[in-house]
Amino acid sequence: MENGGAALAAWNFAPNDALLGLTVLSVRGVLGRVRPGMVEGSDAGARPVVPLGHGGPSAFPCFRTAPEAVDAVAGALRSGEHNSYAACIGLEPARRSISQSLSRDLPYELSSDDVYLTSGCAQAIEVVCSALARHGANILLPRPGYLFYEARAVFNNMEARYFDLVPERGWEVDLDGLQGLADGNTVAMVIVNPGNPCGNVYTYEHLGKIAEMARKLGIFVIADEVYAHLTFGEKFVPMGVFGSVAPVLTLGSISKRWVVPGWRLGWIVTNDPNGVFHKTKVVDSIKSYLDISSDPPTFVQGAIPQLIKNTKQEFFNKTVEVLRQTADICWEKLKGVSCTTCPSRPEGSMFVMVKLDLSCLKDIKDDMDFCCRLAKEELVVVLPGCAVGYKNWLRITFTVAPSSLEDGLDRLKSFCLRHSKRK
Amino acid sequence: MENGGAALAAWNFAPNDALLGLTVLSVRGVLGRVRPGMVEGSDAGARPVVPLGHGGPSAFPCFRTAPEAVDAVAGALRSGEHNSYAACIGLEPARRSISQSLSRDLPYELSSDDVYLTSGCAQAIEVVCSALARHGANILLPRPGYLFYEARAVFNNMEARYFDLVPERGWEVDLDGLQGLADGNTVAMVIVNPGNPCGNVYTYEHLGKIAEMARKLGIFVIADEVYAHLTFGEKFVPMGVFGSVAPVLTLGSISKRWVVPGWRLGWIVTNDPNGVFHKTKVVDSIKSYLDISSDPPTFVQGAIPQLIKNTKQEFFNKTVEVLRQTADICWEKLKGVSCTTCPSRPEGSMFVMVKLDLSCLKDIKDDMDFCCRLAKEELVVVLPGCAVGYKNWLRITFTVAPSSLEDGLDRLKSFCLRHSKRK
Ligand SMILES: Cc1ncc(COP(=O)(O)O)c(C=O)c1O
Ligand SMILES: Cc1ncc(COP(=O)(O)O)c(C=O)c1O
Repeated sequence: MENGGAALAAWNFAPNDALLGLTVLSVRGVLGRVRPGMVEGSDAGARPVVPLGHGGPSAFPCFRTAPEAVDAVAGALRSGEHNSYAACIGLEPARRSISQSLSRDLPYELSSDDVYLTSGCAQAIEVVCSALARHGANILLPRPGYLFYEARAVFNNMEARYFDLVPERGWEVDLDGLQGLADGNTVAMVIVNPGNPCGNVYTYEHLGKIAEMARKLGIFVIADEVYAHLTFGEKFVPMGVFGSVAPVLTLGSISKRWVVPGWRLGWIVTNDPNGVFHKTKVVDSIKSYLDISSDPPTFVQGAIPQLIKNTKQEFFNKTVEVLRQTADICWEKLKGVSCTTCPSRPEGSMFVMVKLDLSCLKDIKDDMDFCCRLAKEELVVVLPGCAVGYKNWLRITFTVAPSSLEDGLDRLKSFCLRHSKRK
Repeated sequence: MENGGAALAAWNFAPNDALLGLTVLSVRGVLGRVRPGMVEGSDAGARPVVPLGHGGPSAFPCFRTAPEAVDAVAGALRSGEHNSYAACIGLEPARRSISQSLSRDLPYELSSDDVYLTSGCAQAIEVVCSALARHGANILLPRPGYLFYEARAVFNNMEARYFDLVPERGWEVDLDGLQGLADGNTVAMVIVNPGNPCGNVYTYEHLGKIAEMARKLGIFVIADEVYAHLTFGEKFVPMGVFGSVAPVLTLGSISKRWVVPGWRLGWIVTNDPNGVFHKTKVVDSIKSYLDISSDPPTFVQGAIPQLIKNTKQEFFNKTVEVLRQTADICWEKLKGVSCTTCPSRPEGSMFVMVKLDLSCLKDIKDDMDFCCRLAKEELVVVLPGCAVGYKNWLRITFTVAPSSLEDGLDRLKSFCLRHSKRK
């Protein structure tokens, strides 16, 4: 047997450059480029890092999950009854309890057959993009938006086309622009409501208009409702309410509402009283893809009925109250930060979008440069807009303890002052 | 707003037929076609169903996981420290303990950077196939084999080419045949050792020959070792031992050894002392794909160090002893079943392959027909060979309680007798 070095055979593997290029579409990938400049002080008095860039609820104690939820999962684990593989669509009791809980806000009743369990909403996006993709097909995505959709669409050879969300109108969909993008190869449009990265919550009326437009264009609606019920302004209305106008695939998970993104349990729900998804074989396509995919942990599936039933309303209320408070802090503090504007007050989710005025900053090239230097100089991590398809904006996450948030925004303020052009 | 019926817009979605066709490559998909004929008796004296078709350890009490493993996961869950998203490659302590535990059987030391965590070995297969795929590329797969590889390769537009395993030589790889299949677009070959569906365990010498051939052809080795250490004949040798001859991607999980396929924790390990995977950007490709994929549950990742450290050797010994016993029962009982032959005694994993002699059966069309009628008439579920790429064979799983296995094989015997041609 020969070893190493000179005798090494030619391993002439050529990587897929398209795949390598997809990292720029991942929040984790972009944050990985923002953070390296940071050198954390090691002495006791050193300033802590303030993380305002992440996509999930954070480790701060005010965002701890409900003890009932932990008990439900621990119970399912200890029972020993959920150690095997589950059916690829998921365990029936979990699917039933999700269908029942979502039906409460709908004008019709969902059945467990409308629900497919996934490994978080991320896998739900993967499944839906894979099921709808065909060579030549295209999908309409919001800008700014959650670029994971583009990554999964492009990986499956589906074209991503972007419609605008209008900052001056609370980030509503520019429906005229959207109509201009669609053609005979458009399969679906995506909305994220409550919104990431914009913190918008759409009204009943606006959702109705979206449904009418989708119907007119003959395209499906993918409604990413992973932030459902995390609203503190406008009330949350599920897109499924309009399922009989246009067929809706609702995507969700326990990640955000229960503050447990590490548990990896999500779903795809067909909101489609007219059975279009069955007739057009979208359902078969989803099942086929699930057949060749890994599943969410069986014992977390097994815990879902108890988790949904036992979590007390106070837990949800408390989470929303903290979010209302931190969103307010963001809104008020950002008013005092020079060279930035925040077009609308967040009403839901965990994010707010802030516009950079580069012309008033003396030595900052773009949003990426801004974030790298902010991280380095102030130990504050913020997501550059490029990671959500919106160059020279910032996305600020407010799922942090109020005191840390205030500290972080104060540092952002000094940073901007220090780098702004003298008047 | 108009509703339903006549006014329904044209939702002219065309499904991707290639995707719909992939269900035939999934064990779950095929079993779903075998089972429907079964009508379980409802009275107390009715015969129970005997499941000999599944791919995982079953719910029988003799295949319960170790209490230390349950404690490790429950502890990580209750700590509240693993509720957030993890880095896309996985938590470092888990990766470190996997690298240390695998290094024990290797002539060199792995580091945690060699380990990438996945949602079971299934997602490891998905990641590896996605990372290596390029249009025009091909991958060499064993026949019979685990068709999930073909499904994931084909979904990514990579061609699957099959080399033979030779039943008369303990299902060793037909290396001459393999050489004939490879060309400049071949990226890798897959081996499953211990084997699914064949129950083979390869010798050190045979693995060495595989590595030499891979080196000669300039292709990578993907070693699926999800059944590692589940051996009761030949001793298990990891393919990574030959990592300096040819770079090896080892895939594994806790599913089989800890009897917890529902927990969804697996890994990809680069066994590559010469750093070929770095130089050729295979590592970057894996990371890029992980960046746009869902992760295994964070708290299961968090539990891995304790789970590996605390599980007692007796637990592993006990599992292997039960498997040795049930494999023996299979081997002995199958000798007495007419119209079938079993070319080699299983030495590992949980399966044995059995050849059908259709010419001696009077009214059975093929393996699928055999399995559907066996399920209907005897309530015994067995996997038809078509699900592992081997028409007119059967795969029998022996991870069932000994008494049930005997019962099931006796029923298989009566079924064959009843359907055999009179002499
Ligand atoms: C809009 C959106 N969709 C989906 C996800 C993924 O959520 P999950 O944790 O359920 O996979 C996120 C996570 O940040 C998100 O912001
Ligand atoms: C050969 C082989 N690889 C991979 C897997 C998937 O294992 P996991 O449960 O870790 O996803 C299986 C499961 O049956 C298998 O037989």
